[in-house]
Formats: sequence, C-alpha cells, structure tokens
Amino acid sequence: MPFQYLTNFPLDDAVQTYLDALSTRGLTYKTEKIPIGLALGRITARAVYAKISAPHYNACAMDGIALDARLTFGATETTPARLNEGDFVRVDTGDPLPAGCDSVVMIEDVIAEDGQVSLYAAAAPWQHVRQIGEDISAGDMILPSFTEITPAALGAMLAAGVLKLEVVKLPVVGIIPTGDEIVPPSEHPGEGDIIEFNSTIFSGMLTQWGCLPKVYPIVKDNLAAIEETLRNAVDECDAVILNAGSSAGSEDYSAQAMRGIGEVVLHGIAIKPGKPAVLGLAQASTQGGLVPVLGVPGYPVSGILVLEHVFKPVLEQLTCLPHVEIQHTQAVVSRRLNSPLKYREFVRARLGLVNGKTVAVPLNRGAGVVSSFVKADGIIDIPQDMEGYEAGQSVNVRLLHSLDEIARMLVITGSHDPLLDELADIMRRTWRDSLVASSHVGSMGGIMAVKRGEAHLGGIHLLDEASGTYNVPYLKKYFPDGGVVLVECVERVQGLMVAPGNPKGIRGFADLPRLSYVNRQKGSGTRILCDYLARENKIDPGQVQGYEREEFTHTAVAAAVASGTADAGMGILSAARIYGLTFIPICPEQYDLLIAEDALELEAVQRLLQVLKGPEFAQRLEKLGGYTLDKPGEVRKWN
Amino acid sequence: MPFQYLTNFPLDDAVQTYLDALSTRGLTYKTEKIPIGLALGRITARAVYAKISAPHYNACAMDGIALDARLTFGATETTPARLNEGDFVRVDTGDPLPAGCDSVVMIEDVIAEDGQVSLYAAAAPWQHVRQIGEDISAGDMILPSFTEITPAALGAMLAAGVLKLEVVKLPVVGIIPTGDEIVPPSEHPGEGDIIEFNSTIFSGMLTQWGCLPKVYPIVKDNLAAIEETLRNAVDECDAVILNAGSSAGSEDYSAQAMRGIGEVVLHGIAIKPGKPAVLGLAQASTQGGLVPVLGVPGYPVSGILVLEHVFKPVLEQLTCLPHVEIQHTQAVVSRRLNSPLKYREFVRARLGLVNGKTVAVPLNRGAGVVSSFVKADGIIDIPQDMEGYEAGQSVNVRLLHSLDEIARMLVITGSHDPLLDELADIMRRTWRDSLVASSHVGSMGGIMAVKRGEAHLGGIHLLDEASGTYNVPYLKKYFPDGGVVLVECVERVQGLMVAPGNPKGIRGFADLPRLSYVNRQKGSGTRILCDYLARENKIDPGQVQGYEREEFTHTAVAAAVASGTADAGMGILSAARIYGLTFIPICPEQYDLLIAEDALELEAVQRLLQVLKGPEFAQRLEKLGGYTLDKPGEVRKWN
Repeated sequence: MPFQYLTNFPLDDAVQTYLDALSTRGLTYKTEKIPIGLALGRITARAVYAKISAPHYNACAMDGIALDARLTFGATETTPARLNEGDFVRVDTGDPLPAGCDSVVMIEDVIAEDGQVSLYAAAAPWQHVRQIGEDISAGDMILPSFTEITPAALGAMLAAGVLKLEVVKLPVVGIIPTGDEIVPPSEHPGEGDIIEFNSTIFSGMLTQWGCLPKVYPIVKDNLAAIEETLRNAVDECDAVILNAGSSAGSEDYSAQAMRGIGEVVLHGIAIKPGKPAVLGLAQASTQGGLVPVLGVPGYPVSGILVLEHVFKPVLEQLTCLPHVEIQHTQAVVSRRLNSPLKYREFVRARLGLVNGKTVAVPLNRGAGVVSSFVKADGIIDIPQDMEGYEAGQSVNVRLLHSLDEIARMLVITGSHDPLLDELADIMRRTWRDSLVASSHVGSMGGIMAVKRGEAHLGGIHLLDEASGTYNVPYLKKYFPDGGVVLVECVERVQGLMVAPGNPKGIRGFADLPRLSYVNRQKGSGTRILCDYLARENKIDPGQVQGYEREEFTHTAVAAAVASGTADAGMGILSAARIYGLTFIPICPEQYDLLIAEDALELEAVQRLLQVLKGPEFAQRLEKLGGYTLDKPGEVRKWN
Repeated sequence: MPFQYLTNFPLDDAVQTYLDALSTRGLTYKTEKIPIGLALGRITARAVYAKISAPHYNACAMDGIALDARLTFGATETTPARLNEGDFVRVDTGDPLPAGCDSVVMIEDVIAEDGQVSLYAAAAPWQHVRQIGEDISAGDMILPSFTEITPAALGAMLAAGVLKLEVVKLPVVGIIPTGDEIVPPSEHPGEGDIIEFNSTIFSGMLTQWGCLPKVYPIVKDNLAAIEETLRNAVDECDAVILNAGSSAGSEDYSAQAMRGIGEVVLHGIAIKPGKPAVLGLAQASTQGGLVPVLGVPGYPVSGILVLEHVFKPVLEQLTCLPHVEIQHTQAVVSRRLNSPLKYREFVRARLGLVNGKTVAVPLNRGAGVVSSFVKADGIIDIPQDMEGYEAGQSVNVRLLHSLDEIARMLVITGSHDPLLDELADIMRRTWRDSLVASSHVGSMGGIMAVKRGEAHLGGIHLLDEASGTYNVPYLKKYFPDGGVVLVECVERVQGLMVAPGNPKGIRGFADLPRLSYVNRQKGSGTRILCDYLARENKIDPGQVQGYEREEFTHTAVAAAVASGTADAGMGILSAARIYGLTFIPICPEQYDLLIAEDALELEAVQRLLQVLKGPEFAQRLEKLGGYTLDKPGEVRKWN
C-alpha cells in the first residue's frame, strides 16, 4: 500500500479503498455466547434451532374433561353420549393430556346427570388440545443468522428451551481526545481552554450504531504520548478513533502516530468539512486481530461527518447490523449556496413543508458550530463537481427527521427574539407533537422568506422612517396584493447594552463615535434602527469602530459586550439581563408576526396563536423583562 | 366509577376510557436530574438554556498573527503593510484573541522581511476569529421541553457549560408472572410445566418503549399472595403488569386482586386475541402517586397485543416519548379469513411484494403461538364489524418491517422441508440484506400460491399416480400456458418415523391398521403419498386411528411420534434424526422448486439458485441426512 499524504480522494472511492484494505487484511466481527435475558436487539451470529418443542407436551387448551374422542362418536342433542367415572379425566387449561385421551370437552358442555356425565355433541379427535410442537418443533430453525433479536424472538427461544445463544459481539470503539488546550467539560472554563465534548458526541453516535464506546483520557500534543495511548487502545479495542486537537500540528501527529503503530491507508478526502481525515489500521499485539483506526479533524461538525460517512460502513462490518439506507428527499434551497468544485460539501439545513413544497434553509456552515447539528433537519449534499445552487433550485437532502415530522414543522423565519423559543417551548409542553423550526435572518429576511413561500411566518420589527410607524408600511410595499396577515405580538424596548455599571458613562446613541461597537447584520430590524439613529444623530458609521462587526442575534451582541470586546451594542432588555449588562433604553418598538394567509389555517399556526393569547406566555415574558403585551394574537388590519 | 366485569368495549373506547380515568386522577411523568454523559436518548423535562457561550472567548481560528486590522488598511500587492514586533502577536488556532487585536492573518500570508513582517493584503476586522457565541450564546435555548437528546445535543450542551439536565424519569414497570404451573425457563421442563417467557417478551417491549422493566418472582394462583405482590409492586413501580397464569381461575384473581388494592376501570375489550384484559389503577402508599395496573391474559400473543394497544399509550404519558404513528399498508390477503363480528381481530401475517402487489399470508392465529410473531412482517387488522375477508381482498396491515424490507423479501410458499431454512440462512450469511419468508402450506398450496401470483416460488413433491413421476404432470395440469419453471432441488427419502428401536416391529405401510398414526394436512405432497400408499395397500383410512390427525410439518409429525401420542407418521429422514426416531424408508421422491417466470430475474431468486449450486448447501444437506443432490439449481424442461 503506497503511502499517501493529504490526497483528495472522492468520498465513495475513499470508503471503498478503506473497506477493501480492511477486508483484504481479514477484518471480521467477533462473537460471544450470552443468556437470552441480555439478547434484546443483538444480532444472531448463527442460526438458532429449537432444543425442545413448544408446547413440549400435549396440553389441554380448556378447563373441562379429557377423553378418547371415540367414546363420543354419534352423540347428538337427542342421543347424548353417557360416560362413567373412569371414562374421562377432569382437566384444567395447561394440564398434560392424560394417557389414552385425545381430546378435551369444555366444562360448559359437560352435563352431570344421574351419576353419569352426558355429552350432547361428539368430540373431534385433538379438539381443545395444544398439540406438542403446535408453536415450535424441536429442531426447527427459529432465527437465521445475522438477525436482530426482537422481544417475541426472546420468547420463542425460551419456549424452545434455548437459554443462551451466540451473538455478534458489540465492538468496543476507543476514542482518544488529543490537544494541549483541551479540557474536560466545565461550567467555568478558562480563557483559551477548549471544552472536550467531541468524545461525548462520538460516544452517543457509536452507541446508536451498536458499539461500546471507550473514552481515553485527554492526551497532550506529543507524538510519543499519542503513539503510546494509540498502541494501548489498539490492544484494548476493536476500532479506534483518534480525535485531533483543533491545531493543524496535532493532525500531523495523528497520521504520524498511526504510521508508528500501523499503517495509513489514505489521508485526505474530498469532502467539506472533514477533508483531513486519516484512514488507518493496525494489528493488535494481543489476539484481537485487525483494528481500524480513524483520525478525525478536531472540529465537531467535521468529526461527525467523517464518522458517519467513513467509519459507519466500517463499523457495520463489526456489528453485522443491517445497513439502513439513508433517506433522502428533494427540497428547494432558500438561498444561494456556493460550494468549491474540489469538494463534496455537506451543509446542514432546516427543512419544512411550506405551501406544498419542501424548503431547505441552510444553517451556519462553520465546522465548529455544533448547535447547527441540533437545529438541522437534514444535510444538503452538494456533489463534488458542483459550484453550488441558486436560491429556488432543487437540492438533494439527507433526512435527519422523518418526512412526517417535517410536514408537521412550523417554519418561522425572520427577526430574532428569545420569545420565539419560549413560544415553541410552550407549544411543545401543551401538544407534545409540536415542532417549530425558527431561523434568525432578520426582519427583511423574514419578509422575503414569507413572500417566496419558504416560511409559514416570521417575526418583524421594521421602522418606517418616513411615517415613524412599524411594519405596516413594509407590508404595503412588499405585499401589494395582500396574501399575508399581521398578528400582534409584543411591544419591546430597544436600547444600548453596555458593561455592568456603565463605566464609560454612555448616555445614548450620540456617544457612539467614542466607543467600540458591535452591530447586527444588515436587513435585521435592529440594524435598520441603528442606521436610522446614526443618521438622526449625524454619525458617520465609517468612523465608529466595530460598526461593521455583525452578529445575528441579540444574545450574540450581548455576549460580545459582556466579553469586553465591544463597549456597546443595540439590543433588547431580555438579552442584556441574561448577561448582567446595563441597559440604556432608546425606544419602544412593535414586534409583530407576519403570517402567510395560506398558513393561517394550519393546526400549528392555530396552536401558536392560542399560546400567544395564553397566560403562560405572559408569565414567561414577564420573567424575560422589557415586553408589553397589548392584544397578543390579534390580527392587525393593514390593507 | 362503576364496576364493570368482562365488558366488550371497542378497543379505542377502552383505551380512551382508561386514559381519561388515569388523567382525571392525575397520572403524570416524573423527572430527574442526570449528568450529560447519561442523557443520550432521554427526553428533556424542561427547556435547556446555555450557561456559557460557545466559544466562550474570542478564539483565533487559524495559526498566524493577531493584530488590529486597522494597521493593515490600504495594504496591497505593491504597497504591503509593514509591522514591527509589538504590532502583532503570534497565535495558534484556538488561542484567545489577544487584547487590542480584532483579526488574525494566516501564517502563510505573513512574510518576514528585513526584521519586519510584511502583509500584502489588508485584514478585515474579525477575520479568522471565532467570535464569542458564534455557535451558542449564553442564555439561548438549546433544546425545548420533551425533546429526545441526540449525540449532537449532548455536545451542544457541554459546549454551553450544561453538565447536568432535568429529564423525564424512565418509568419502572413491574411485571408479575402468576400461575401454579409456571416455571422459569429451562431446557428440560417437566410434563405440565409451562415455561414462563412472557416476562422476557414484555421486558423487551418495555425496554424498547423507554421503560425499565422489573420482573417479580413467579406467584402461585393464590389471591392473598397475588394481592401482596401487587401491593409491593405498586409501591415500587410507576406501572404494573399482572400476567395471569393460563388458567381461567387466575384471571379472576387478577381483577379481584386489583380491586383489593385499587380499582378496576374496565375488564374485557372487544379484541381477539386479548379480550379478558383488566385495566386498573392503584395509589402507591409511598409518595409514588398513581400507578396504572394492567392485567393481561396468559397467552403470549394476547399479552403482546394488549400491551401494544392498551398499555403503550399509557406508558407514553410516563415516558413523554413522541408517539410514533404506526405504519400501515394495504395488502392482498392470500386466503379466506373468517373473523367474529363481535371482536376486532389481529392476525399476524407474512408480507411480500410479488409481481407488483403486496401479499399478506396469514399465520397461525393461536394465541399461544409466539413463533408467529417472530415470522410476522405485519398484523392484519380486521375491524369489529367485519366477518372477515375473501382470498384476494385488500386488507389493512400494520407493518412490523419497513416496506423496503418487504420489497426485498423472497416469498417461498409450498411444501415444508428444513432445507428451505438452511437455504435462507446461507443466503443471509452470504448477503446480509437477504430476507426470506417461507410458509408451509403443502405442495398443492405452493402450486396455487405461485399460480395466484402470491409467491415467488414454492417447494413441491407431488407424485402422479398414473405415471409414477413427480411434479411435471401437475405443472402440465395447473400451468397449461406455462409461466413457471421447475428447478431441480433434491431427491429425498420418505419413510415411516417410529419410536426409537421400533418396539412395535413396524415393517411398512401395510402395518398401519394396527397402529395409531399422525398424518400431514390435505394438499401436502406427503399426504398425497400417504393416500396413494393406503390405496396401494388396500387400507381404509377410516379404520386407521389418527389418520385424520393433521400436522403441518415433518418435524411436527416427528414430535408427535417422539411424544408417544402416535406410533408412526410419514416424513423425511432429517426430521426423524432430529428426534432420534427410527426411520423405515418407503420411497425416494423428487423435491423441486417451482418458480414463477416473472420472478426468475429477481436478485433474490438468482442468489437462491447460486446457493443451491454451492458447496455449503451440499455440506448442510449431508449433515441433515437423507438427501441426494443431482443437478441442484438446474432448470428442468417440463413443457
């Protein structure tokens, strides 16, 4: 096998090359014998045969009398058969059929008369008898090889006298986190500390794939230390994942360490994110055999994708679990997506069914943004030879949720306010099947999403400078033909969020030129307000340090101020409160919901309106602070 | 709540009545706080908010130098910016952005010249910086209530400083097996002992439904003992299943015991099997609160159905897991199905896609036949007001396997031979995605199933009395227009299976009148052979004891002989061997496969033919014994 460094193998070729290399060297599953009580969900390693029949004796299937059916032949309503003691045996359900008997008569049909027993109908041989082997005959194959064991299969095996069986062993998969700055999870990490959560994500994925994860302590960026841990892991595990620190240097160590103890099959796959993956293997010095070793990049999103695409097929060779075809769907992408020709790119997206079409809203593509995997309903798969897609084009999406769930999803796209998450949570607590997907793209983004039929609704707070009113003038401009309604939500206060205690003595927007600022993205209602206030205060944005620094949510702006990298940012009271910032109120504004008329009758939208009007929403807003409720949920006339 | 005894409530009404009764009395889930490491697959009990931002500091996203971007403004290819030590800081990926810096320049773009550093392009503020909160801002809602925790969610919580969270507690569900004859699983149960495997099946189902099963020791049929165990279980568990012994008496105890410690909401549901279910509740004497108590009939199939239809919706109130809609499909039923008007009936069935239509082959309807649940791919749901279906009618089937799996299923319907299971197992070992559904309906049943387009193929061994040849004359009769091929399988020996050592000195079929016999069902090739031999030997079947006693497989006949309830039965050597019976050869016969021409090109059929010709099949037949292979897998000319 030639040594290959940072190649750009197409994904499918890379996986096939890796599988071939492993199979050539004899990668195989292991088996173990376990009691039935532990076998749920496990995979049979060989066919299971019945040891005894079920039932294992001829069993009476009714309470009544057992007898030789020939004694009753000819019995009718008018000429009953009369039996004496000794002709029959009194039996209960489950009793063995007594010797000499071949049938059971139900107790309800047994008439005691004159010291005898009368039967007014003939019994058929073998009636009301569960014959030996009725369910399973000894020697029958109960389960073939490589079959997942269900609850009923457990019962069938026990019924057939099988108390232990040979199953495929759950592969132990070692996870080695490496990196000098990596620290265990903490509520108070120091500056520069990188919280090690990849091993927890990977452990979860491995558990779901039928493996037993084994996480090793964090190893520093030191070749000898990494090699030593890797060598131990290869001896102790059936497969190993080496999780590089986020520095480029440590990735080099991964490949080097793998070469030190085994072999690198290939290094570098044409996918984004995930390119620098190292696909290797090693031989255990114990009798463990061949061990696949995977080096994954440090960013969580890269790691997740490499594990799914490269390591899952390898692990299936060890678990023998059936390969479940990944479900895909076609969706309309909500905005332009550029992608490098050199790589096959995977972009996480929210999905929703709006107006009969499945819409994919791409999420943050950063490889470090693990929350995008929590929000994602699907992964857009952009082939290697594509430069991307225009908005409105059809894209191929791998589903993370069922189409049924996506059809139920309420798609909210527009301005960010924490109240949207609270609404979603109240809906979910009230109706457990509620699903809300909300994307923060600013008020103008919300208007465009509803207009293009890509969202059911969106939050907007857009100041019209000419009239000094909110929202309605924008609807008149963008929806001249109607088709949308405006639903009252809240009045909230916008203001400057500044360091606790306001050490710089900031009094208002006019102070901006002497401050460092953090702004919101263009098209957001808050940015429009800032730009307006700048003009009002005759401030040249070019002269304000950080005016071009853009964040996408109120909380992200608050976080920037709280960290001290900006003196001030515009936002709402609830965001300032979360970070313990001082809040300098600037102006109240109307935050409304823009809802597509088509969507108004959807159950999810009706639920939302119901929650808007309810007491729990009011209580939660009270707690967040800075909101005034007038007639929440009321449809406002605007055209 | 009025006391109701053995009512006939329609299923949906019964479930609603039960849920209402429980909800009125305040049934609710419990919660617990657990570390993230244990939270995979659990359900959030309340919304989870970020405690810290991720990243929690402004982090350099590249190896290079950090600086104030303003120092580089105006730098171009021809007029580089020149920086001195002190103007910048050398940084690695993940390092905190040093104070006074707002951007990072990649090391590749940093040119050392004359003791200075030159930059040939301007840096944009915040370039190559992962800003604080880029992924998650402190205070953001990471997960709403009642959400299943995925691997990525574990990572997002740890990244956001959440180390513990409140989840819905896994409900502990007690299972109390009762019955005098019930014994723990054993390889050698005594006659009359009933192996207790229901609690293992139920435990498996409960585990799959997100509960923690707790199995109590077997309780004898004694009211006081049952009541005491039930009272303990109600105090120790969140829900309890009382599994009656199979006798009618013990079922009475269930309702009585439940009334003793709590309340019976209703007793008797209009379903078959499962009618005598008891739906009850009790109050824990500890602080545990309200506990649903279910009395289920003793037969495993009844128990499984009652648990699925009645208790699963109750348990979902405790687990808060999303209700997954059960998938249904329409299928053509392969034979007439009668059903009582009084009950909604559930009939297990094998499913397969044959010639473009989904076919449902009903399985044994016995409530004790747990193996039918292992074989079943779906459950035919016959409404309460239906008398059943004619063969060929469309029925509503609840899917136990995916439609994708059913589409891959090779449907074999016809004569029974253990070699079919061996073929299926070899196929599965060779191609892990192979799925074979074989039903034993006899040779004539196989011919009819292939003719009606309900099976891809079937095993047949049909003696034509006139010509003394096998199979071909039948094909000429039933397939005058062709459309099927005959594929060579094996020659096998039929004979009488008798007690070990042949104590009755049986020499051949002529001895039948003096023996008790066990026969095969009408339409099976073996039955046709028996009838032929009876005529040959001038035996009147009416005079042979047990000639009308019918079993469906060779092994079931062997089991009957082995149990001593019959002196002899006709079958093949391999079946006799499994039971250690003496085998008296009668005649060889040709066992072939009849394959629909349409099916011949299916991948599954091609795989089958490949296995038929392979060495492993020959080895396995050798082990079974009694088979001769000539040209297995060869297509025989017949028309």
